[in-house]
Amino acid sequence: MKMNKIRSAEIICVGTELLLGQIINTNAAWLARELSLLGIYSYYQTVVGDNAERLTNMLETATGRSDLIILTGGLGPTQDDLTMATVAAFAGRPMLLHQESQQAIAARFQLMHQRRVPSNNWKQAMMPEGALVLPNNNGTAPGAMLTIASSNNGTVTLVMLPGPPSEMQPMFNESVRPQLVKCTTTRLKHCFVRMIGIGESAAESRLLDLISSQTNPTVAPYAAEGEVMFRVTQSLDRDEEMDKTAEVIGEIQKRLGDYIYEIGTRSLPEVVKDLLEEQDSTVSLAESCTGGMISAALTDIPGASTIFTGCVVAYDKQIKVQQLHVPETVIQEHGEVSEACARAMATGCRDVFNTTYSLAVTGLAGPTGGSDEKPVGLIWLAVAGPQEVATRQLQLSGSRSRIRRVSVLQALDFLRRQILK
Amino acid sequence: MKMNKIRSAEIICVGTELLLGQIINTNAAWLARELSLLGIYSYYQTVVGDNAERLTNMLETATGRSDLIILTGGLGPTQDDLTMATVAAFAGRPMLLHQESQQAIAARFQLMHQRRVPSNNWKQAMMPEGALVLPNNNGTAPGAMLTIASSNNGTVTLVMLPGPPSEMQPMFNESVRPQLVKCTTTRLKHCFVRMIGIGESAAESRLLDLISSQTNPTVAPYAAEGEVMFRVTQSLDRDEEMDKTAEVIGEIQKRLGDYIYEIGTRSLPEVVKDLLEEQDSTVSLAESCTGGMISAALTDIPGASTIFTGCVVAYDKQIKVQQLHVPETVIQEHGEVSEACARAMATGCRDVFNTTYSLAVTGLAGPTGGSDEKPVGLIWLAVAGPQEVATRQLQLSGSRSRIRRVSVLQALDFLRRQILK
Repeated sequence: MKMNKIRSAEIICVGTELLLGQIINTNAAWLARELSLLGIYSYYQTVVGDNAERLTNMLETATGRSDLIILTGGLGPTQDDLTMATVAAFAGRPMLLHQESQQAIAARFQLMHQRRVPSNNWKQAMMPEGALVLPNNNGTAPGAMLTIASSNNGTVTLVMLPGPPSEMQPMFNESVRPQLVKCTTTRLKHCFVRMIGIGESAAESRLLDLISSQTNPTVAPYAAEGEVMFRVTQSLDRDEEMDKTAEVIGEIQKRLGDYIYEIGTRSLPEVVKDLLEEQDSTVSLAESCTGGMISAALTDIPGASTIFTGCVVAYDKQIKVQQLHVPETVIQEHGEVSEACARAMATGCRDVFNTTYSLAVTGLAGPTGGSDEKPVGLIWLAVAGPQEVATRQLQLSGSRSRIRRVSVLQALDFLRRQILK
Repeated sequence: MKMNKIRSAEIICVGTELLLGQIINTNAAWLARELSLLGIYSYYQTVVGDNAERLTNMLETATGRSDLIILTGGLGPTQDDLTMATVAAFAGRPMLLHQESQQAIAARFQLMHQRRVPSNNWKQAMMPEGALVLPNNNGTAPGAMLTIASSNNGTVTLVMLPGPPSEMQPMFNESVRPQLVKCTTTRLKHCFVRMIGIGESAAESRLLDLISSQTNPTVAPYAAEGEVMFRVTQSLDRDEEMDKTAEVIGEIQKRLGDYIYEIGTRSLPEVVKDLLEEQDSTVSLAESCTGGMISAALTDIPGASTIFTGCVVAYDKQIKVQQLHVPETVIQEHGEVSEACARAMATGCRDVFNTTYSLAVTGLAGPTGGSDEKPVGLIWLAVAGPQEVATRQLQLSGSRSRIRRVSVLQALDFLRRQILK
């Protein structure tokens, strides 16, 4: 049976380990993103256990509301792996032995130098009658694609993919996407506008008209901790090239430009790295309450060594003095959490590491150690640059780890602004 | 309305960004695990967009099959955040202004030194009539808990939690768990056996009989990156005290004792911190390829300053020489990724920071920079202690970030073993 045009999809992930929270479901997000880029919007994602009855109920619900249903997981050789058989029974198709798959399984075990194929692996060569079999080049379980009549007089296409991302993703790319492209009329073009220094609701209130009035491209807020993100999405016809996002993005820039650090997909550490590279500049870090998190974030980027020389985590007062040459008197007079200490840490760090810039952070992440004068969440930032030393105070709220995470973003953004000066 | 006993739960995550695959759904896994620890099994996990009609359909389906429905997301101040209003409408409850929440929101903005509260934030103080309001100490959106009559003549409890994990998790721990405990007939007593240095399948094969034969307590593997975890679960009646887990755990220890670092709930950094405290010892760090991640992990623990003085992230060769006093000759003869360099980093670090122990890590995290002689994933660890300097080589595989994360665990475990000597 031929696929009709696909308007709506949903994703069903099968696996008891998902229901027990033993593994995080990354397949749903990956598939949803790939589908949305094909212009196919998925309205539901569901996780069900390895249970034929509940999976059948899900299939009844799903086939009644979606044109495309992608299932992952439950294609393994064990007896709890029952996705393929359950779908076949639901579709009223017998399970037939698929010769090529049988040969592929034998070949794979030979590849693994196992001459005997475990008997239960042959089960993986059983396919619903009339299904398009999707070869698996990274595992033993082939997938399948089956189009059947739907309860609403149309057709619904069921795609069964293996659970492991290392098998599922290549199978989707090699065998599923080419099929889906034939059945879509539009694609989606996304652009992200990322900003720091303004709250989500404050930012949205300045874009309310764009968010509510725009139809193509659309503007939507996008949740992110410690920063604010908006997604600009344009729907294009199959071969349309024209970019309609630029104008809307220009309008967002006009209204919120001062807070925007990225129009695209780069993270804040990546933006900072690229800025430093453009300027042939380097940076070193003096961290106290963030305890190495900023350093970890920068070094998470491949090739960070071109702009990052190192970091001193000065958790103990003596380290601030010995390693960063903070004058004892500064700590005695102002304390470790003070503008003067942050300033001294940054200048000391820049001299020790001999970098263009140094970023220093000192503060109280809590939960204890706060006072009326210096409450938990008080953070001092300092950036020592070629010309001047700039400082900034933050007063953050929330848990210890939230205070630390937000401090990292605010510190990197403060550095970014100094570099741009 | 009072909650009945809870037998089955399901989790509904609300958010268009989840449906578009822009963020990975970690809330469902976290909640599913916490529920299973309470003896509550969740049979379904669903993701729906910020869409009142589809959310209402989901609520109809869910309230017909589950006693407890936990919703996350859609409590924000923005227009498309409509979870609370949709649930209220579904339950036939008017939305009422909740004074305390209104005050809490005002207080939070004051804390952020914003005198004016954005008008759309007040929406977050509107609560369904009769709901138990759950305060949010890490964000502006309070949660709510509402028990209503279910279509099958019982009751169903709806719990609305914010989407950001940093707000959702504390709210569940502080306000939801205490309520749920009252509604479960059995308790599950869990004990985790956590180990490092052995593969999951190797560990499993040594416990196969326990995993398959045990009924109460049960033994189950628990997915975790870079380490192996087994969960020993005993099901107890409400007030039963008898502990049946000890014997099984003893058996696991007999078979895998050398790999076990924790029987309980402490993370590896916490175990290391406690060990150092017991010995009145301190540690300092010299990190290269891990770029501050070990330091960040240790300082994530409140009160880490008792055992941790500081860290040098020596990303650049010169820093290894200047800050950690690694002899130039060592680097010339052996290179930065070598046993000799790791050893010199550890001893230099211990002298500079004057701590009982110093842990040094140097290696190639990739993706580039590898050679036949020194491939990506080659890591050298060194621990300088009071008596001796111990070194260890790792050869890790996978992505840059996986190599870094596993290096952190292996390094902390190596330190732990040296402390125990």
